Amino acid sequence: MNLDDLPIRDDLRGKTPYGAPQIDVPVRLNTNENPYAPSKALVDDLAEEVRRATAGLNRYPDRDAEALRADLAGYLGHGLAPDQVWAANGSNEILQQILQAFGGHGRTALGFEPSYSMHPIITTGTSTEWIGGVREDDFSLDADKAAAAVAEHRPDIVFLTSPNNPTGTALPLETIARVLEAARGMVVVDEAYAEFAREGTPSALSLLPAHPRLIVTRTMSKAFAMAGTRLGYLAAHPAVVQALLLVRLPYHLSTLTQAAARVALRHRAELLGTVDALRRERDDTVSWLRGKGLTVADSDANFVLFGKFPERRQVWEGLLARGVLVREVGPPEWLRVSIGTGEEMAAFRAALEGVL
Amino acid sequence: MNLDDLPIRDDLRGKTPYGAPQIDVPVRLNTNENPYAPSKALVDDLAEEVRRATAGLNRYPDRDAEALRADLAGYLGHGLAPDQVWAANGSNEILQQILQAFGGHGRTALGFEPSYSMHPIITTGTSTEWIGGVREDDFSLDADKAAAAVAEHRPDIVFLTSPNNPTGTALPLETIARVLEAARGMVVVDEAYAEFAREGTPSALSLLPAHPRLIVTRTMSKAFAMAGTRLGYLAAHPAVVQALLLVRLPYHLSTLTQAAARVALRHRAELLGTVDALRRERDDTVSWLRGKGLTVADSDANFVLFGKFPERRQVWEGLLARGVLVREVGPPEWLRVSIGTGEEMAAFRAALEGVL
Repeated sequence: MNLDDLPIRDDLRGKTPYGAPQIDVPVRLNTNENPYAPSKALVDDLAEEVRRATAGLNRYPDRDAEALRADLAGYLGHGLAPDQVWAANGSNEILQQILQAFGGHGRTALGFEPSYSMHPIITTGTSTEWIGGVREDDFSLDADKAAAAVAEHRPDIVFLTSPNNPTGTALPLETIARVLEAARGMVVVDEAYAEFAREGTPSALSLLPAHPRLIVTRTMSKAFAMAGTRLGYLAAHPAVVQALLLVRLPYHLSTLTQAAARVALRHRAELLGTVDALRRERDDTVSWLRGKGLTVADSDANFVLFGKFPERRQVWEGLLARGVLVREVGPPEWLRVSIGTGEEMAAFRAALEGVL
Repeated sequence: MNLDDLPIRDDLRGKTPYGAPQIDVPVRLNTNENPYAPSKALVDDLAEEVRRATAGLNRYPDRDAEALRADLAGYLGHGLAPDQVWAANGSNEILQQILQAFGGHGRTALGFEPSYSMHPIITTGTSTEWIGGVREDDFSLDADKAAAAVAEHRPDIVFLTSPNNPTGTALPLETIARVLEAARGMVVVDEAYAEFAREGTPSALSLLPAHPRLIVTRTMSKAFAMAGTRLGYLAAHPAVVQALLLVRLPYHLSTLTQAAARVALRHRAELLGTVDALRRERDDTVSWLRGKGLTVADSDANFVLFGKFPERRQVWEGLLARGVLVREVGPPEWLRVSIGTGEEMAAFRAALEGVL
């Protein structure tokens, strides 16, 4: 017996599991992790907090994660209250809950591709129909065309991304506002990489007071250097959070996750202290790649999309053979490199020179 | 603006979030937690393991949780290999993944009520149609009638529960085998409370070799006294696990959860050492309640369903006023009490005597 013999959902037939290869190589620049490991002070604090929490681990966690949500609201600022914040196991679970509450069979979600590839996967995984909108050739989003696409398709959910993954491009607030005006349903702005944006790039959080159907999602996996903790969160109108309570699995967020995320927020100065170095490294990487004659998308994130390679698989394999793992993702002919430490980026540059 | 003004899914309108009240009272006997907190040795070991894991918390977890699944396979025995085991954030997420892979719009799931109330909630939450089968008056399941219901409705997924929540009744293997013969789709045997079953109650795990469409689900929240860790798991044919990989959210299980669950498995002798005491306390509770002239369902679990109270809310409130929180769940006129420590059960008995 094999997978094909099982009565799986028809639209899953022939599919393969989502996920970048997890390969043990010296330089991992493929999943947009923050390369800086937590300090000893943070590790000690987290271990101590977990020790305290473990004493009551026979009990279920706080189902509403109230303390954590208060801390997250405090971090986000913008006058947000805890009842406007929600958290889950990674922003993927946040997105799935949004789809479960506002999508489903007979409903649609629209996103502008290339974009985060989990958006369509989670959409169809919840029986929601996916509508793929388009971007300009430089991966930017034209506000008029975006608003027109929303007006035409009348989706129940619109996904915007700022900065966008895998292209790195952030959105002007005006574009988000135009889409909000055109939308009859929910508008999700995925800000997983917001902390890396270039100076002066405003967050969609500032639009929340005027837009009750806006949801801004975030994660602690990137700038916060907590990918292993799996903590995604969102900010929205309190009624949106109430809607998600109807579909969330009870006790979805473990005691340990809640404790670890709160410790990370206490240590935010250290964790976010890596952002400036990563931005500089990113800007240097963009310049260096362009200096090599390559095409590079502008980036407000901790990764850079570069190309174009008619045979990108060969370049990817060449880098891997030299101990550098990047991501074969996004539009054909392009590769994405996550920004690592200075040493890791030097290894990336050396490897790429070897390949080209 | 409030929840009603938002474009939520039509079938969510008017619903309230699932979950027992989380009330801070001296004696919490409402969510079938294990009352015994982890020992200092376990707490120390877990904190140390988390300290080690935290050093790499900037990286994503092992997406396939391979080490944990190997440990779980070893715990379950029955010759299971790691590729027959899958884990997620609580058995609720396990169940949701099963519904996402094998259910969905246009498909059906059948369960025999009263049973675990999350089964229909997760079913409809994945756009799957719920079919409610029935039990005998003593909450047992008649094998002929169960097989006939399956043959009649031809569901894509059948839920069995052994022991059943909230009634406490375990299933003979013959009943499970009869349902497996009648079913054309997947058969899920929810064994969340399996470790509490009375001597000689076999696990459906023994049926796995002959039944590739059988899924046995378990949790570390009950006998394992790790409700705060949120670790559910299943055993099935390797192809079933491959199917779930198509719908699981990538990196759904955090580094901390994986580490904590492995520590708990190492300390299984301590954790499962509480099971005998809880069984005795359960059997004493059943006898005592019957001695009071109450009707009590046979229990193979760490809770007891008792009644019948024409006004169960008054009894529930009376107990709460005396500092004892039980659960108002299941069929009307019945209440469910989780089995606590000897001291907690004494408090329950005193409170109930006060109420009656």
